[in-house]
Amino acid sequence: MKCERLWTNARLATMQSGVPGLGVIEHGAVGMAAGTITYAGSMVDAPAARETIDCEGRWITPGLIDPHTHLVFAGDRIGEFEMRQRGASYEEIARAGGGIVSTVHATRAASEADLVASALPRLDALIAEGVTTIEIKSGYGLSAEDEAKMLRAARILGEVRPVTVRTTFLGAHALPHEYADDADGYIDLVCQTMMPAIAAAGLADAVDAFCETIGFTPAQTERVFAAAKKHGLPVKLHAEQLSNQHGAALAARHGALSADHLEHLDDAGIAAMAEAGTVAMLLPGAFYFLRETRLPPVAALRTAGVPIALATDCNPGTSPLTSILLTMNMAAVQFGLTVEECLLGVTRHAAQALGMQEMVGTLEVGKHCDLAIWDIERPADLVGRIGFNPLHTRIWMGQ
Amino acid sequence: MKCERLWTNARLATMQSGVPGLGVIEHGAVGMAAGTITYAGSMVDAPAARETIDCEGRWITPGLIDPHTHLVFAGDRIGEFEMRQRGASYEEIARAGGGIVSTVHATRAASEADLVASALPRLDALIAEGVTTIEIKSGYGLSAEDEAKMLRAARILGEVRPVTVRTTFLGAHALPHEYADDADGYIDLVCQTMMPAIAAAGLADAVDAFCETIGFTPAQTERVFAAAKKHGLPVKLHAEQLSNQHGAALAARHGALSADHLEHLDDAGIAAMAEAGTVAMLLPGAFYFLRETRLPPVAALRTAGVPIALATDCNPGTSPLTSILLTMNMAAVQFGLTVEECLLGVTRHAAQALGMQEMVGTLEVGKHCDLAIWDIERPADLVGRIGFNPLHTRIWMGQ
Ligand SMILES: [Zn+2]
Ligand SMILES: [Zn+2]
Repeated sequence: MKCERLWTNARLATMQSGVPGLGVIEHGAVGMAAGTITYAGSMVDAPAARETIDCEGRWITPGLIDPHTHLVFAGDRIGEFEMRQRGASYEEIARAGGGIVSTVHATRAASEADLVASALPRLDALIAEGVTTIEIKSGYGLSAEDEAKMLRAARILGEVRPVTVRTTFLGAHALPHEYADDADGYIDLVCQTMMPAIAAAGLADAVDAFCETIGFTPAQTERVFAAAKKHGLPVKLHAEQLSNQHGAALAARHGALSADHLEHLDDAGIAAMAEAGTVAMLLPGAFYFLRETRLPPVAALRTAGVPIALATDCNPGTSPLTSILLTMNMAAVQFGLTVEECLLGVTRHAAQALGMQEMVGTLEVGKHCDLAIWDIERPADLVGRIGFNPLHTRIWMGQ
Repeated sequence: MKCERLWTNARLATMQSGVPGLGVIEHGAVGMAAGTITYAGSMVDAPAARETIDCEGRWITPGLIDPHTHLVFAGDRIGEFEMRQRGASYEEIARAGGGIVSTVHATRAASEADLVASALPRLDALIAEGVTTIEIKSGYGLSAEDEAKMLRAARILGEVRPVTVRTTFLGAHALPHEYADDADGYIDLVCQTMMPAIAAAGLADAVDAFCETIGFTPAQTERVFAAAKKHGLPVKLHAEQLSNQHGAALAARHGALSADHLEHLDDAGIAAMAEAGTVAMLLPGAFYFLRETRLPPVAALRTAGVPIALATDCNPGTSPLTSILLTMNMAAVQFGLTVEECLLGVTRHAAQALGMQEMVGTLEVGKHCDLAIWDIERPADLVGRIGFNPLHTRIWMGQ
């Protein structure tokens, strides 16, 4: 196939499946035409190209993917963090107006343009580390109008920056104060009002919920999933973060793309996920920031062959993290993931968790030409170092 | 006093002592002449200046200080990390040539220029976060020639980059294989050969040792301290990291600038440090990377009034960390430090730990004009966020 551009003299970590490890090709080259990869292989077999870029022996990985974020929100919760560090209880923080309530309040008060502007520095931090695809959830609006506003802001982020944005409708994130005593009534609103409007406007690529004692019940979650199915939207779930609600098994029964967090996941949940092909999305930033001690069942996930993805979970309250590289390091150090598992977690497996495995996540012909070119000795440098960014060049859709 | 340059329309966190909290001045200005701060106070009282820089409401803190690093070394230990994550035991890693031995081997083989070149990306990462003063230790040469080479490389780093470098001779870091059965003989070499030569050449600003079951005994440490005293060099100590050797009390008896790590510090050690004015240097990166669970006694240090400093401990084996901002976050999240304690830990208290309290660490007249100017809402943003760098401008010695 013809190439507009060829990156040559590179070492490739193709991340493709069916080959050992990271799918390394020493003395490799990547060719591109019309934003798509047209060649990924050995230099010696590379096609001719109009333009050739000498990578001087640098490593190329697929552009990184952050597949679970709450990147769009107004305000921040740093004042709350300051209180917590001074020893304030969660009750005192709540009395002072803290918690998710404060983010909902600020997000409702913000305009679409405000939301875009405040999210940009966070998005830019991720882009600076080679992120080319990002998932962004709603969930701080909690009204038809404000949830749609958040999703529009997320879509706009994908227009004003060279990054692929996947949006997720997370109306069932928390209970707004208007529905304080009527969670089922709020779920009615989510399913009967919000979701149809959001689906009709094409604002969401997937639907998510927060199934937890402090969130929504499995029965309420199931109603959200049923509504999503009606609108042809794939589902995913915040599951088993703080307790075992058997949410992962529920998600798997509905063919979920991913079940996320999973510190309290049990064997039945793992088996259900393996059976359904649901990705295990681990979020080490929240584990770290909340000083959790219960580890997700990594060994059992491995044994069951459940693919593991990693994400920042970027959000103002429990994971104010905007580094995908640090996310990998935290997954290795805290959860014991191998280097290979970490790198797959932000490439191929992250793509699978977004239902984008045909488009991104590996260096293979036909996929988006999203590349991260690194000043490193070996791919493990991206995982083993802490607070260091060796990105040399980032390419999104061939540019 | 006259000003060459005035940064105005800023919010100052002066970090000076004797005032509450961070010494905040809203509507503040900083004046500079000949590289020194000539004014730090309210805008309305600010002197005239030849050049005025409008900070547009941004925050100014003192330039940040990383007061404990092993920044100069050759090779890396990422291959070892990769093995560890695959489940290799420390014995297997050692058999494969891993551990500090590998760093010593690579450092001895490296030229002075090699050491400078390999350290620069690490130094640049810290500089990019507003670090203006850094301590750098020897300790991977472990021979007269190679220890001096490391310290010369550290000095050169301070010449090729706009940063103040303080060097520390850490000959008593580990036992080189030539002395495998003769630790006392190696301490003779450290005290009688290495230290006189290094002191005569002005290569070290302080002397450090690693007092630990896997390092040197208190008696050997005491010999190193006695030699340092003879050469007029202040001391500090790697103490109580993995066990309680009563190293902090020993260090305090010798008037040490700091005792560092301190997870196993006891009450007697704390009392001795308080009495001697020895700074407690906490290294949360090593705690994190080694998955330690025993916390340093922060509450008791607070009660005793021992100043707490923070550092990256940047080193290839146990803290491959090159972010001073993340260091603060880790100290808050893992050790429970307040925002104020974290910020003091990388400014005023860090300066004290280097014996530089008259020169750097606060925005006060007469100190080096080392400034970090930040795009933040409040100083707590520097501590509460993870993997985010809001540095706007960094000024070193007025430039
Ligand atoms: Zn989440
Ligand atoms: Zn150290």
